[in-house]
Amino acid sequence: MPASFNSLNSLTRDIAFTAPLTLQSGAVLPAYSLRTETYGTLNAAKSNAILVCHALNASHHVAGVDEQGDVGWWDNMVGTGKPVDTNVFFVVGVNNLGSCFGSTGPTTVNPATGERWGKDFPVVTVEDWVNAQAALADYLGIAQWAAVLGGSLGAMQAMSWAIQYPERLRHCVMIATAPKLSAQNIAFNDVARQAILKDPDYATGGVPRSGLSVARMIGHITYLSDDDMAEKFGRELKNDALQFKFGTDKASADFQVESYLRHQGEKFANYFDANTYLLITKALDYFDPAGKHGGDLSAALSGASCDFFIASFTTDWRFSPARSREIVAALIKTRKRVSYAEIDAPHGHDAFLLDDARYMSAMRAYFKRIEINIQGATA
Amino acid sequence: MPASFNSLNSLTRDIAFTAPLTLQSGAVLPAYSLRTETYGTLNAAKSNAILVCHALNASHHVAGVDEQGDVGWWDNMVGTGKPVDTNVFFVVGVNNLGSCFGSTGPTTVNPATGERWGKDFPVVTVEDWVNAQAALADYLGIAQWAAVLGGSLGAMQAMSWAIQYPERLRHCVMIATAPKLSAQNIAFNDVARQAILKDPDYATGGVPRSGLSVARMIGHITYLSDDDMAEKFGRELKNDALQFKFGTDKASADFQVESYLRHQGEKFANYFDANTYLLITKALDYFDPAGKHGGDLSAALSGASCDFFIASFTTDWRFSPARSREIVAALIKTRKRVSYAEIDAPHGHDAFLLDDARYMSAMRAYFKRIEINIQGATA
Repeated sequence: MPASFNSLNSLTRDIAFTAPLTLQSGAVLPAYSLRTETYGTLNAAKSNAILVCHALNASHHVAGVDEQGDVGWWDNMVGTGKPVDTNVFFVVGVNNLGSCFGSTGPTTVNPATGERWGKDFPVVTVEDWVNAQAALADYLGIAQWAAVLGGSLGAMQAMSWAIQYPERLRHCVMIATAPKLSAQNIAFNDVARQAILKDPDYATGGVPRSGLSVARMIGHITYLSDDDMAEKFGRELKNDALQFKFGTDKASADFQVESYLRHQGEKFANYFDANTYLLITKALDYFDPAGKHGGDLSAALSGASCDFFIASFTTDWRFSPARSREIVAALIKTRKRVSYAEIDAPHGHDAFLLDDARYMSAMRAYFKRIEINIQGATA
Repeated sequence: MPASFNSLNSLTRDIAFTAPLTLQSGAVLPAYSLRTETYGTLNAAKSNAILVCHALNASHHVAGVDEQGDVGWWDNMVGTGKPVDTNVFFVVGVNNLGSCFGSTGPTTVNPATGERWGKDFPVVTVEDWVNAQAALADYLGIAQWAAVLGGSLGAMQAMSWAIQYPERLRHCVMIATAPKLSAQNIAFNDVARQAILKDPDYATGGVPRSGLSVARMIGHITYLSDDDMAEKFGRELKNDALQFKFGTDKASADFQVESYLRHQGEKFANYFDANTYLLITKALDYFDPAGKHGGDLSAALSGASCDFFIASFTTDWRFSPARSREIVAALIKTRKRVSYAEIDAPHGHDAFLLDDARYMSAMRAYFKRIEINIQGATA
């Protein structure tokens, strides 16, 4: 295990819920299971619990190295001595409903049929996920999270917690997010879905590898900044000379950036479930808490009682700083306590997963404040 | 015919060239044909000819309404009384080699086999197109164009004329272009190509309608600005309520923007040739005149002897104003005469095709100057 990764005790559990969950669509999940991974120890007052919500292709496996040797997706953020310090906090990672990493979703068996849910798994929303996460909090005996934390789609879940269950979190930490998708955001999601839905292997119930890889390539372009791609790849050739031909494999690529994206696409098609991709991008598209309030985000957030920390990255063109500032402005308008960091970082949307010194320092400082709050409350 | 479209005399011709054309790849086209459309009258001095070069999906049909009722792609720019006035200029539109609108390309018959060229049509570059256009100029008896004009990829051909045949044009007019594609530009092109190449109908020689439609959807997102999409579509629903399901047809779309893009994709798959799409995006990727000069664009342009007019649009994120300014800076460095207009317009890359008053006014003024130059020369 590389020394830089966390060596920490974690506990992975599948937790079964037998109370039916009514979804926003009106469909009812009669029973479901959530796969969780936890780090650190819940204190006696149960006041040090942090919920980490994941975005598109991540999972409950937030930190440390699992049995397969896979490093958690936010291992640089969560762990012993990390900004979210597992010596201080009890951190809960949870795989969302509809995902493909152990919780109930398209790849698990529908008890009503004895077959995998597949395409029949109902559409789930951010609000549905938060309801399931609230059932998880009940199960764990956590009346109130010290913080709910996430980046991108994960941050939308944190925001929804502040709206749906205002008394159940003291801090809401939202990184690289938006209060709702723009038309362009939705457009990119739908093109990616179309690539999957139009793949003949999807229609016949097989694995639409072509569609998944194209979807991932599209997504990947939007995660990186133009500058970052220029820096990483420029117009560097894959081979000695231009190929003057067309192909789908990495070897036939003219430019390094083509080879890189094809590789990312292939890798993704090897591990990710197509129906999960459809479901999670749809949850992104549907998220719009201001929608029920005539577009007034401050009205949507008016019932929140937690403190907020928001961070964005200058080169993120998927969810630009302007989108985070919309949330900040709405919170100020409705007189909430909010701290905001706009980080000058070159890595686009992906910056929320990376080690930018100023970003890490801001996160560490904010979680130190949360720690002091807890000590004050329990002293 | 709507009154706003040009009612002008045009002549469409297929011009056969029997001298072989050696391509940049080393392949040789033994013979080829170019479909052209011309407007106005060539003057006795043959000094009033304008060549209009097209971008990805356009053609020789620049202005007026053809027999099928189709309006030319730049009808607002070229015609009687338009900025490029066909009462003054003899305007030549030409379909490029490898395209699918009448010139030799994948959809025409390879004389060596008696079959359509299809996938066997050789990769062509901007430089190859310009060489074929020079043969066309010879055929028309035009020793020197008054101007070579284009937008986007069309502008790259205009730039290449200034480099390859410096004595054969007096003005080079480049709109919404870049001196070469960025890694992000190439990435978008390659994802679109992958969608086509991975469509099983492509492998079997059929029409890869799914791939073509996904490719077009991706491209279309990059042609519009984020603001423009927000203005046009926002999060407006296609139906009364969210659908909570997935589909590929327009009716199943949740949001208007999805329905619009699916429509654009379907329409494109109905008329555009997949091999042409591959070829033309590859020509875009390969264009890099500075490449032969160690990346020094001013060195690449040092032999040019024409005047330059360059325009860009503030919300164009495919080829942003910064990319046009690179060309302007390189021209100034090598002491060329260059005029530059940066137009504050909301419509993204597509703005070069639209009626922005300031853009049209700048184009009209520049072509007036070209007209006066001609009159001076022939007086």
